[in-house]
Amino acid sequence: MIASASTTDVSHNPRTAESVGGVQHTTPTAVEAILQAAQFAAAELAASSPFDRQRWLNAVAATLLCHSDELALLADEETALGLPRLRGEIAGAAKSAQFYASVAVDGHYLNASTEIVNDTTTLARWNVPIGPIAIFGASNFPFGFGVCGHDVASALAAGCPVVVKAHPAHPRLSVRMAQLTRDALDSAGAPAGVYDLVVGFEAGLQLVDSPVIMAVAFTGSQGGGMALRDRAAARGVPVFAEMGTVNPVFVTATAITAFNPTETIAAGFVESFTMGAGQFCTKPGLIFAPAGSGMFAAITDIVAQVAPAPLLTAGIAASFDAGVAELAHATGSLAHATGSLAHATGSPAPAEARRDSLSAARVFAVTLDDLQPGSRLLEECFGPVALVCEYTDSAAAVNALGRLQNSLAASVFTGGPCDVEANEVVSQLLTKVGRVAVNAWPTGVANTWSQQHGGPWPATSRPDATSVGAGALSRFVRPVAIQNAAPAMLPGALAPENPWSMPRRVNGILTVPTS
Amino acid sequence: MIASASTTDVSHNPRTAESVGGVQHTTPTAVEAILQAAQFAAAELAASSPFDRQRWLNAVAATLLCHSDELALLADEETALGLPRLRGEIAGAAKSAQFYASVAVDGHYLNASTEIVNDTTTLARWNVPIGPIAIFGASNFPFGFGVCGHDVASALAAGCPVVVKAHPAHPRLSVRMAQLTRDALDSAGAPAGVYDLVVGFEAGLQLVDSPVIMAVAFTGSQGGGMALRDRAAARGVPVFAEMGTVNPVFVTATAITAFNPTETIAAGFVESFTMGAGQFCTKPGLIFAPAGSGMFAAITDIVAQVAPAPLLTAGIAASFDAGVAELAHATGSLAHATGSLAHATGSPAPAEARRDSLSAARVFAVTLDDLQPGSRLLEECFGPVALVCEYTDSAAAVNALGRLQNSLAASVFTGGPCDVEANEVVSQLLTKVGRVAVNAWPTGVANTWSQQHGGPWPATSRPDATSVGAGALSRFVRPVAIQNAAPAMLPGALAPENPWSMPRRVNGILTVPTS
Repeated sequence: MIASASTTDVSHNPRTAESVGGVQHTTPTAVEAILQAAQFAAAELAASSPFDRQRWLNAVAATLLCHSDELALLADEETALGLPRLRGEIAGAAKSAQFYASVAVDGHYLNASTEIVNDTTTLARWNVPIGPIAIFGASNFPFGFGVCGHDVASALAAGCPVVVKAHPAHPRLSVRMAQLTRDALDSAGAPAGVYDLVVGFEAGLQLVDSPVIMAVAFTGSQGGGMALRDRAAARGVPVFAEMGTVNPVFVTATAITAFNPTETIAAGFVESFTMGAGQFCTKPGLIFAPAGSGMFAAITDIVAQVAPAPLLTAGIAASFDAGVAELAHATGSLAHATGSLAHATGSPAPAEARRDSLSAARVFAVTLDDLQPGSRLLEECFGPVALVCEYTDSAAAVNALGRLQNSLAASVFTGGPCDVEANEVVSQLLTKVGRVAVNAWPTGVANTWSQQHGGPWPATSRPDATSVGAGALSRFVRPVAIQNAAPAMLPGALAPENPWSMPRRVNGILTVPTS
Repeated sequence: MIASASTTDVSHNPRTAESVGGVQHTTPTAVEAILQAAQFAAAELAASSPFDRQRWLNAVAATLLCHSDELALLADEETALGLPRLRGEIAGAAKSAQFYASVAVDGHYLNASTEIVNDTTTLARWNVPIGPIAIFGASNFPFGFGVCGHDVASALAAGCPVVVKAHPAHPRLSVRMAQLTRDALDSAGAPAGVYDLVVGFEAGLQLVDSPVIMAVAFTGSQGGGMALRDRAAARGVPVFAEMGTVNPVFVTATAITAFNPTETIAAGFVESFTMGAGQFCTKPGLIFAPAGSGMFAAITDIVAQVAPAPLLTAGIAASFDAGVAELAHATGSLAHATGSLAHATGSPAPAEARRDSLSAARVFAVTLDDLQPGSRLLEECFGPVALVCEYTDSAAAVNALGRLQNSLAASVFTGGPCDVEANEVVSQLLTKVGRVAVNAWPTGVANTWSQQHGGPWPATSRPDATSVGAGALSRFVRPVAIQNAAPAMLPGALAPENPWSMPRRVNGILTVPTS
């Protein structure tokens, strides 16, 4: 491994492409000290009660809300995602911290179970925290998947120390937010070492390679996620990577009605795929609509009104330009494809999708035949671009869904509860994605008990896991069992009097406290 | 990949080393046909109700019991494990099939959850079967982890088709048992293609490489498990490998009492580590006992009475010989180690632990200082051999537990409920193993709701999983969510009237049917 020549993450304003300061990389010695502190904290954190962890996480939530204006301004300067969106994301992160704490207190994630014979616990089973977690935040959600987002809050709630690798797209925000988080945890009485931040690519690798780190959580590109997974595999360390995907939308043959007019679907699609300048991992990148619906025309009309927007980094903007050119080539080079594009500036050349610091939204028409395995059209292009496929043969279109790469999410627009085809499409999609939104868009993920934000490989490196929703804690625990345990060896969840008031299974019978 | 020259798995009698027939390898064309049938069956199986799957699995259990004498005789001819043990294992496999079916019917493994607003299901989440599973059985448990053991029954219970790779140590038994299993499933009305068997190394690789196979379950050696894991990683296919480990036993400083005399512990230890000729993945390979307990002397006395036994295959016998020689070298080459051995034949040379087709039980004395990271003494040696470490410094001995490789299981012998050191040892061991047996031996794993049969890496490739106990089904499902699902899109577990009578969470509240 060759050390990076750079020793600083430089902060850029995406609107001006100007540098607005920078942050020093964490030295190897400092990273090691942080890891040792995390390891030292692991046992105390594992032994803490969920009620203590709830207090700590509620303090983090309060700090986020208290500093919302400051953090939103700092984030906007580094991401250009706009103050309203960023303030909303901060409020969401605060609610998430509280939610994951409530999931820990509920206790179901411990999956506690005992067998008792003559008042003696012959066998007891529950989940224990696995230890320090390395968390790699995302460029596109500085609060949702950042320095104190879903991964951090769910890992702490599960009882694991966390070490965050700052995303280079918002280094100054990362440092400030980490400082606030650490201070909030300290003030609330969390053990020293349960939370820290490192900066720099090499520091991130040091985390992945350290025997202290027991799991890695990552949100971002396929390339980044797979590289982390491969690197951690040698040590047997799980990498929970949720990556950007195409997230198809299917409009059934009978969906276009007064309830679901073409114009409404077209407007919703454009809003969804250009939201945050198309920088969502759940962005809908491809829509199937019946021929004759006028969907492509309606979408191009609306896209023409979308103002160009700055992308998060120069690198993302360059990848977007290259991706748009590849998509144009993939549609243009096929006999039955009609390459089309529409954007705000009126310029027709695909490679000119970006103008200075701004990128225009783009849309391409494709045919069912274009969507063959291996085609570039089946891969994500991060940014405000999407494909429209108008189909004549409904069965062939449903069949084409089976050829798509697996995704995090999908949408289906239906003719209502009696639309039998919709049921078939949902069944097909459930084999390809983790979440199906019916008459709704895949962007916008509620953080609740029933949420699932992970899809089959390669959308997610661990399709059994989720980074959003109550299931997020389960990534960071493993089951243990004791035969003939003395009472002192059992956790609160399994103590005879059930002091933590948690659901548990006793001799095979699941019981839920009613208090 | 070079095709194997052999086209037959030759069956050997371990007692005589003579060939007792053979079984043709499955051709690539036949393997592909089996895989296609499994894929075709997957959707129907996924849509089947747990009650149907229970009927099928109960039929498998009935067939096993019905053919117990025939199967035990066939198995004994190929494994030499003895009729009583084999009949017991068949009865256990039948009970397991029934148990996993009951876990499916209980429905908790679906983790069903909905959010409902104004009688409309806004978000629903449950687990779906992931599809066809490849299962590699173990040499040492022809019924428990074989052609219809834990992995097969739990995968079918979860709604996944299975394709088993026959273990070459008992090919004729595998073929006969697969035939009985297939017939039982057919008669009970299971879809065609839900179950089949392939024979041969190349056929096994073909399973792992096939896009049809969605997960692999394996029980066996570290080498075999890791090779499968690495091969499947490219496709993102999870490999649930549970592998042989050292499984330490700790006798606390105050444990030796009238309740736990040295002779009783020594006899239990020898019985446990020589059970099935030491061919258990949970075999206790190392015991710590206080100096002055006379533990090593007591154990050597008993080992001297143990009759030599045939190992499963010539390959396992040769590995055992090599392992015993390595252990002797590792103890003998260290200044503070006293290499010792005791066996039935009186021969002192480590390389002579095997005599013709029989292997003698062996035991070596080691010191705490011998147990340094990287030492051969910390790795499993499959077969009837174990190490004894008498310690003078109790704290140093507890500390040494932290240096051991992670294991599936461990045992602690204590001075009773007031033995404070025991609590500390259990805490330490829970970071190193999946299961701790208190005043009991690690061999012998009950199949119940509270069981956990997997340990931290590298004991298990997926420490969050288990191949024994109710949790075994969870390996073969993944979560999905639907927003705004029409009633017809929901499974029985989430239908409003709860027709399957399953536990589920509604708006965050976990409810358990009382019927």
